[in-house]
Amino acid sequence: MAPTKYAIGLDFGTNSVRALIVDVGTGQEVATSVHHYQHGEQGIVTDPTNPHIARQHPRDYHEGLEDSVTAALQQAQSVPEFAAERVIGIGVDTTGSTPLPVDQDGVPLAFHEHFQDNINALAWLWKDHSSMAEAEQITRLAAQHRPQYLKKCGETYSSEWFFSKIWHCLNVAPEVFAAAYSWVECCDYIPAVLVGDTRPENIKRSVCAAGHKAMYCEEWGGLPDDEFLTLLDPKLGELRGRLYEKAYASDITAGQLSKQWAEKLGLPAGIPVAVGAFDAHYGAVGSGVAPGILVKIIGTSTCDITVAPKTGDSLYIPGVCGIVDGSVLPGYYGIEAGQSAVGDIFNWFVTHICEGDGNLHDELTAEAGALKPGQSGLLALDWNNGNRTILVDARLSGLLLGQTLQTTRAQIYRALIEATAFGALTIQNRLEEYGVPIDRIIACGGIADKNPLLMQIYADVTGRPIHISRSAQTCALGAAIFGAVVAGHEVGGYETTEQAQAAMTGLKDKVYEPKADNQAVYRQLYKLYSRLHDSFGVEGHSDSLYDVMKKLLDIKQQTSS
Amino acid sequence: MAPTKYAIGLDFGTNSVRALIVDVGTGQEVATSVHHYQHGEQGIVTDPTNPHIARQHPRDYHEGLEDSVTAALQQAQSVPEFAAERVIGIGVDTTGSTPLPVDQDGVPLAFHEHFQDNINALAWLWKDHSSMAEAEQITRLAAQHRPQYLKKCGETYSSEWFFSKIWHCLNVAPEVFAAAYSWVECCDYIPAVLVGDTRPENIKRSVCAAGHKAMYCEEWGGLPDDEFLTLLDPKLGELRGRLYEKAYASDITAGQLSKQWAEKLGLPAGIPVAVGAFDAHYGAVGSGVAPGILVKIIGTSTCDITVAPKTGDSLYIPGVCGIVDGSVLPGYYGIEAGQSAVGDIFNWFVTHICEGDGNLHDELTAEAGALKPGQSGLLALDWNNGNRTILVDARLSGLLLGQTLQTTRAQIYRALIEATAFGALTIQNRLEEYGVPIDRIIACGGIADKNPLLMQIYADVTGRPIHISRSAQTCALGAAIFGAVVAGHEVGGYETTEQAQAAMTGLKDKVYEPKADNQAVYRQLYKLYSRLHDSFGVEGHSDSLYDVMKKLLDIKQQTSS
Repeated sequence: MAPTKYAIGLDFGTNSVRALIVDVGTGQEVATSVHHYQHGEQGIVTDPTNPHIARQHPRDYHEGLEDSVTAALQQAQSVPEFAAERVIGIGVDTTGSTPLPVDQDGVPLAFHEHFQDNINALAWLWKDHSSMAEAEQITRLAAQHRPQYLKKCGETYSSEWFFSKIWHCLNVAPEVFAAAYSWVECCDYIPAVLVGDTRPENIKRSVCAAGHKAMYCEEWGGLPDDEFLTLLDPKLGELRGRLYEKAYASDITAGQLSKQWAEKLGLPAGIPVAVGAFDAHYGAVGSGVAPGILVKIIGTSTCDITVAPKTGDSLYIPGVCGIVDGSVLPGYYGIEAGQSAVGDIFNWFVTHICEGDGNLHDELTAEAGALKPGQSGLLALDWNNGNRTILVDARLSGLLLGQTLQTTRAQIYRALIEATAFGALTIQNRLEEYGVPIDRIIACGGIADKNPLLMQIYADVTGRPIHISRSAQTCALGAAIFGAVVAGHEVGGYETTEQAQAAMTGLKDKVYEPKADNQAVYRQLYKLYSRLHDSFGVEGHSDSLYDVMKKLLDIKQQTSS
Repeated sequence: MAPTKYAIGLDFGTNSVRALIVDVGTGQEVATSVHHYQHGEQGIVTDPTNPHIARQHPRDYHEGLEDSVTAALQQAQSVPEFAAERVIGIGVDTTGSTPLPVDQDGVPLAFHEHFQDNINALAWLWKDHSSMAEAEQITRLAAQHRPQYLKKCGETYSSEWFFSKIWHCLNVAPEVFAAAYSWVECCDYIPAVLVGDTRPENIKRSVCAAGHKAMYCEEWGGLPDDEFLTLLDPKLGELRGRLYEKAYASDITAGQLSKQWAEKLGLPAGIPVAVGAFDAHYGAVGSGVAPGILVKIIGTSTCDITVAPKTGDSLYIPGVCGIVDGSVLPGYYGIEAGQSAVGDIFNWFVTHICEGDGNLHDELTAEAGALKPGQSGLLALDWNNGNRTILVDARLSGLLLGQTLQTTRAQIYRALIEATAFGALTIQNRLEEYGVPIDRIIACGGIADKNPLLMQIYADVTGRPIHISRSAQTCALGAAIFGAVVAGHEVGGYETTEQAQAAMTGLKDKVYEPKADNQAVYRQLYKLYSRLHDSFGVEGHSDSLYDVMKKLLDIKQQTSS
């Protein structure tokens, strides 16, 4: 029997980084360690004068990298067959779009003494919304001059994305912009650090970051062209040549682990490091995403990821945030969609309205679980944080309908869960309508594990069986999978991502199967949801809503008997 | 100086009866006493097998009458100039429609030994909803055969009303129906008891009860005709002859206080007792209702009452529950409208959703008062208990729109208050549209006294100054006013109701004047409210609601700066 081999997955999150050591043959997670970032508040550097600002210090990345990996290796020593020499590859995922301004050597400007107190020289964290004006400008100009650029990103370029942030930096901190030779996504920076060459022209950039956040597409020759960027600002046009020409899927090797970092971490020098990508995309890989399977990463918000085979035609699905060749599985279109608030809506209701805590979530879930679909006569829209996919409209808000003088907290709590399920179904329907079948769902994330009621409602509403990913660390597992893929078959890794997934991912035994009775009621409720969705969300759509409250009462009567 | 004269007002409510002794010259309330009913739960006899049933025992009326009047008289002894001989008249108001089955002598069947345990022989309290099927049938048949009958009662005959209840009794308790020689409204029964003659053919029936609840109108010769009632059931057709031909306003004397009751109460025999009416209508009189003045009795629900001069044309206002000649002030159309839930909506939110108590009302009111109109971005419909006036649709329900992840309890609380104010304005607009001007508002009821925030919001939303009735017992005061009117000028009373009102009613000093800034914002919000109102409430009305959430955000932005 060949000796067990291991891969390391590194997952750089919003507040911390996790290192995961995985048995390449079985996917068993033999050790894991989390390093919490030291700068700012839980790793987020904010500005009291501007609530939209959210930055990270790249020092945290370096410290977290070293600390999490060495601690995980330490932990793994207790596994008899483990040895650091048996680690054959490394994968890295990070949040994004989280770009850093760097100098000609790829050193973050934040490390320059001159910029050490300049918040704009830090990494611009995904949730930084200070670049809203620039995002609107980009959307407007692209719609006018390069409509194709918007086709892959839901018709709206976001303030969270690469060029919005860089342009905003140029507008508010021209000295930082001027000093930046290039800008590098965090998921490109970490692998470059590991391989010991951060020079921008040598970094193998992630197609996941490039395609989903920087309007990169081979159809139009990579990044947006000079002329367009010059339209935004001539200085952005000049920058283009110092960004990148080509981006890669994660089955490509970013380089080999440098001697220096091998020593620092206690790993064999020369093992391959995969091209990085974003956490959600790796989470889908670590959950077992494949054509026909939608992975839902359900947390405060929800990210939906699936893949579709590449056909001759370019795939366009209106309202879907991102469709990028190779961003999830190499050789497939990676499709990203999502809901701007899911767990956040339940948290809002419990903390802001009921003024309760985690226990109240449990209480309300238990009470809501005793209700039958339709019985409360309530219907809600899940737009408390806008609508990210299909309508792509941050200016939408929540709606609750059907309240009487007897309506209870638990009924509202259930209606809010149902609303997010209807929102999820709306996305799934849109994907299927454009030829991307969704046969089953794999859920991961905290809520998927902890809330069987929500899972059953999602199965009943969507009419699809819902599985739960075996791993609780699907992002880091996805990173380890790519570590095993770039290592290759000969050293005990894999030739393809699919083979690695087959060996290293798994599902829990529990499957949530749709219940026919509930489905029948939810089909009626979803029709009403869709009418509210279109009435309030689609320009020019008008409908007589006179019967909505009545139909809810009919359904209530029918389900209460 | 002529000696001070007094009138007694008796207000028979849902849980108790109040006697009020009033100085006829000044309206000063010199003594008052409340008797709580003994039967059932707080005076309401219910049936555990049917939550729609709500009855009262007429024994409570008799005991309450004696107890409350004697206690009030006792209390008045401390007023030096008071003497029972100086009481010159009595007025009575009650809840309604609250009909009692009686025998040929007018004795309630509930007093018959044979029926002592029969819940259907009791008084059928206004809030008894067991007769829904009959109400629907009456509405359907009237629409088909006598559309005019529905014109004065908002196009819908209610399960709370006279004929629905009697017909339901026939259907579920034919033995009670058969034993009932006639049916008498509570507000007709009490004056008849006082004058010592309850024989149905001798009772002077209230036009308020007849017109608002029994489809009585002189235009078509009084009560619904034989043929129509026979259509419902031949036995109802037969009953018609044992009901009444004519009904009267309250400036008419029902009769003179009988010797027996004079002795029992300690009052002079022979003083006049006015024809009775419903509590809300007398409340309006006791608040100073007049043409151009809308009296709002604001409590768990709200009753709106005004009067309009009689013109040649019959007055018809679609969606307004009742328009009855003389039901409020003799010689004017009495107009009744209302909102099915006002205080009940705030109570629902505080008790069911926030799980708080009275203190939380105060806290939320204080927090809500610190917000500016429009600032929360929220908009609600006030239909948690259906819509009584304009839409006349019990099958409507609540709606809340504009929630974000930051929305607070206090913001929702304020939005609910505003929703009831928009509902109030909708009624006022409808009245004005049909030629009934509303120049100012007089509010009474618990909320009017206790919640200055709500009062100010109502002034700002409706654009009308709001006064508060001086008396806290406007219903009983209204009854006393009619006691003074039937007593007449010669014995120290009044010739007209207006004269009595002028002397006996008053306003508090505090006036809520509309604030121009707030009005400007509420005008914008009301436009959005109206669109939701019509979209969800008016059959066939369709509208693009796409901009509603956006406009709320615009208003939010504009009012937050």
